[in-house]
Amino acid sequence: MAALRWDGKLFVLDQRLLPWEERWVEVSSAEQAVELIRGLAVRGAPVIGLVAAYALALEAHKNPDLSYLEAQGQALAQARPTAVNLPHAVSLLLQVARETPEPERAKALAAAAEALHRADAEACLRMAQLGAAFLSGPSLSVLTHCNAGALATGGVGTALGVVRALHASGRLHRLYACEARPVLQGARLTAWEAVQDGLPVTLLADGAAGSLLASGAVHAVVVGADRIAADGSVANKVGTYPLAVLAQRHRVPFLVVAPTTTFDLACPSGAAIPIESRPAAEVRECAGRAVTAEGVGVFNPAFDVTPPELVTAIVCERGVIAPVTGENLQRVLA
Amino acid sequence: MAALRWDGKLFVLDQRLLPWEERWVEVSSAEQAVELIRGLAVRGAPVIGLVAAYALALEAHKNPDLSYLEAQGQALAQARPTAVNLPHAVSLLLQVARETPEPERAKALAAAAEALHRADAEACLRMAQLGAAFLSGPSLSVLTHCNAGALATGGVGTALGVVRALHASGRLHRLYACEARPVLQGARLTAWEAVQDGLPVTLLADGAAGSLLASGAVHAVVVGADRIAADGSVANKVGTYPLAVLAQRHRVPFLVVAPTTTFDLACPSGAAIPIESRPAAEVRECAGRAVTAEGVGVFNPAFDVTPPELVTAIVCERGVIAPVTGENLQRVLA
Repeated sequence: MAALRWDGKLFVLDQRLLPWEERWVEVSSAEQAVELIRGLAVRGAPVIGLVAAYALALEAHKNPDLSYLEAQGQALAQARPTAVNLPHAVSLLLQVARETPEPERAKALAAAAEALHRADAEACLRMAQLGAAFLSGPSLSVLTHCNAGALATGGVGTALGVVRALHASGRLHRLYACEARPVLQGARLTAWEAVQDGLPVTLLADGAAGSLLASGAVHAVVVGADRIAADGSVANKVGTYPLAVLAQRHRVPFLVVAPTTTFDLACPSGAAIPIESRPAAEVRECAGRAVTAEGVGVFNPAFDVTPPELVTAIVCERGVIAPVTGENLQRVLA
Repeated sequence: MAALRWDGKLFVLDQRLLPWEERWVEVSSAEQAVELIRGLAVRGAPVIGLVAAYALALEAHKNPDLSYLEAQGQALAQARPTAVNLPHAVSLLLQVARETPEPERAKALAAAAEALHRADAEACLRMAQLGAAFLSGPSLSVLTHCNAGALATGGVGTALGVVRALHASGRLHRLYACEARPVLQGARLTAWEAVQDGLPVTLLADGAAGSLLASGAVHAVVVGADRIAADGSVANKVGTYPLAVLAQRHRVPFLVVAPTTTFDLACPSGAAIPIESRPAAEVRECAGRAVTAEGVGVFNPAFDVTPPELVTAIVCERGVIAPVTGENLQRVLA
């Protein structure tokens, strides 16, 4: 299971069509990558960073001119505003471009994108081990939100990497997946990944998470992230913050799993994280059909911000940040 | 706007088809009423009580025999388990049946159902005034969940009655409506009612309520109820409890609006309220289309329970219960 393939050519799995159809799309330009990222054909903070990196490498093959690559890089970095992995990957690749003579630039950028991809896969494995070790108990039921799995990363996933590690060691009782309206990444992607891997999975409407947590059936809430500020505030799929508030009330650990590429130390706090507003049609429609009256306004932020005091721990590939404070975050990332 | 019409014949608006089509269906038997209630063609705690009452009156017209009516009443009372208005209306009508000689029974039951209907409409108006007076401020934005409007009652609605009263007095800035997955009563019914009445309305996915409340845009959360226990615990559409937890965190008043027919003093606490589990297909599908992988389990409670300490006030037609304690509840209902 993977969100992208690279063999000198770049292919992405069109996630808009899941779980109905597995269609791979070749990506041959930065412009096309921007369109696929913006349209959610490919989504998930780590994986959109990787797609941007590979798209820039493809552009360097067409035209290694530095100012051209910088313009392409800027467009890619701005495809969506919240996930910091996107500008992070682009600035890393542009740095390589600046340090490499023009004739070798395309090759160097491809190598840099591949290294980023490998590092992300390795980070997933490391986080999976760290996260599974952090959670105690022989038989755990885990609630997750949206999709932070193989479809969102270059590896086994962030939150779902931890869930897979629990399953591999016989410690997963059940995965509960919130559907994550409006785009239903939980229903369409997380449940699909879980079924493919033979994980016991139960789907619920986002509003049912309160009942589920109140029932005592959940031992940990585990989610990914799109950007983590210097104070430990976590931007993630809209609906994450209510889960964190509920987890605190019911004394259930709330774990965020994200690679260091998702941290933005230049962002002092949650209030400084730019939150994307998505089109009204995502809420006005459900699976392609209008579900509300004409003339209705829509509030559709793609992400929300969970303050650090609600997060039990952040797991990155360098270690576990707990309790979540700016100091602990600096120490683990240093 | 209304959910049902009665002129000796009973018609209900098929709410499964809203907002796409306004189709009125004649209800001619208790069996058919049970089917329509169970299938959500007609829903909302007060209105399903009224439909059950009228259906029993229709049955008395066919066969006034007491044991026949008791069997029909039992089927109606058990059509759905959570809303206490259903058994409440049935036991009231059966009481009238027992007290009336057989030849006059059909007429007496029709009159009792009509009286119940009138009382519900009057209760809505009274609650609207009380609720609007309880909320302070010249320009209020109100968040609601599911549909507690004209489509759920025999009058202007419970929660939406309060919203309509605010609007009528120029005090409504905006109505925010959570869509209420899986059945989307917020998107399909509340937004539709609001547009019909010219109320400024904004729709959101249930998971976006956290961001909305954190933004400070909401001055009150106002919802209906399906059953209120003697300690003030409130069963209402799944997703209500998370809103109450968020409202408490953001110091926003959380108001429950429900007529006395929704109170169940025989139920000592929230834990004693029976919570209906709905079919998995409601979550596996969205607007009629499968949205998840085959083989996925589903958790689909129709309601959740909000404990009294999270409820700022309960408004019923007899007055405002605040703070919400068993004692205050007894005093207002006495």
